[in-house]
Amino acid sequence: MKTKRAVILLSGGLDSATVLAIAADQGYECYALSFDYGQRAQTELNAARALVQRFNAKEHRVFKLDLAQFGGSALTDEKIDVPDQAQEGIPVTYVPARNTIFLSLALAWAEVLSADAIFIGVNSVDYSGYPDCRPEFIAAYEQMANLATRNGVTGEPFRIETPLISLTKAEIIKLGDRLGLDYALTVSCYQSDEQGRACGKCDSCHLRAKGFEDAGLVDPTHYQ
Amino acid sequence: MKTKRAVILLSGGLDSATVLAIAADQGYECYALSFDYGQRAQTELNAARALVQRFNAKEHRVFKLDLAQFGGSALTDEKIDVPDQAQEGIPVTYVPARNTIFLSLALAWAEVLSADAIFIGVNSVDYSGYPDCRPEFIAAYEQMANLATRNGVTGEPFRIETPLISLTKAEIIKLGDRLGLDYALTVSCYQSDEQGRACGKCDSCHLRAKGFEDAGLVDPTHYQ
Repeated sequence: MKTKRAVILLSGGLDSATVLAIAADQGYECYALSFDYGQRAQTELNAARALVQRFNAKEHRVFKLDLAQFGGSALTDEKIDVPDQAQEGIPVTYVPARNTIFLSLALAWAEVLSADAIFIGVNSVDYSGYPDCRPEFIAAYEQMANLATRNGVTGEPFRIETPLISLTKAEIIKLGDRLGLDYALTVSCYQSDEQGRACGKCDSCHLRAKGFEDAGLVDPTHYQ
Repeated sequence: MKTKRAVILLSGGLDSATVLAIAADQGYECYALSFDYGQRAQTELNAARALVQRFNAKEHRVFKLDLAQFGGSALTDEKIDVPDQAQEGIPVTYVPARNTIFLSLALAWAEVLSADAIFIGVNSVDYSGYPDCRPEFIAAYEQMANLATRNGVTGEPFRIETPLISLTKAEIIKLGDRLGLDYALTVSCYQSDEQGRACGKCDSCHLRAKGFEDAGLVDPTHYQ
């Protein structure tokens, strides 16, 4: 039987780490793709490297991408502060067209690898303010991707897999925990220090801590 | 009245130069976006810079993008030769998911600029072997893009404009000529030398020369 291959978008955060655990558990040969996009949290990339080792991904590429030159987000623009509290509407931590760009680079690698799927850890429950985390965006992307590539000509479709899309943070954590994922390896904080320790104060830290609480599991996060 | 803004994908080739001329003629404030993606023809970028001057684009960004790390194309992979003759099926000069990636980065900038449109010089007549030059791909991309961004939430759609999509090379050249475009500024050859002079032998050179012939215009191309 042909080995199933998948490109996994891996930031090193809690969600994408769980996605890698799921793809590995489903028997995919995993090709992890991370981005160094001028984000403040370089420690995420160290987390991604540790996760690649843990789940025996076949390859790991870190693609350098200077999204800061377009600006418009607190995550890539030094002039915009990362807020401590959740905001109404689209958050300032939203990076314009980020998931579209990440999926497009994953698509290029997937086409070269003849992969069957791209896995991405988008979630429409906790992050409903991000337009590019919604199921209708993913469905439109999958349709476009099948027209964009050789697959659109040869008729072998591939899929955009979003196993977390309708799960709560607590459900995600329980699932990863069952698959043997040690969440101490992951980094969620937008302002973590060089040792990967979380601030415990930002939006992302709050969501994560509440996830462990709701899941009834001990929070293994290293705080500053 | 609000100034119309557009992001123009500008390679420095004949097609994208014509697109810039069209967008400028239509009264758009033009933001030109070029890519330095490890392609062999660095002279294309010099051509892009000259065109930006000629058509008074408001800004020009050259985005560095190392697509060679994914391989799979004669344009970015040193191990695959650029063929002299046209081939059946999908050409080896096809770069996996290239237009998807270019449009996605243009989308990020367009969102930050609140632009009304992205212009891209795809053409389904001469390059029908490229899956990502087909009208059905562009339509699917536009639909996806409107879901991916703030526009998908605020309800202000923007458009992917493809003014060349159904024109022959000769029609493209006649249109650009009418708009005052000096095609000597543009580079089409996959193997041009450092002075931007064309080889006159490759697939792209043949298509271009035939375009001038069919248009009944003098070919201003500098050959080696």
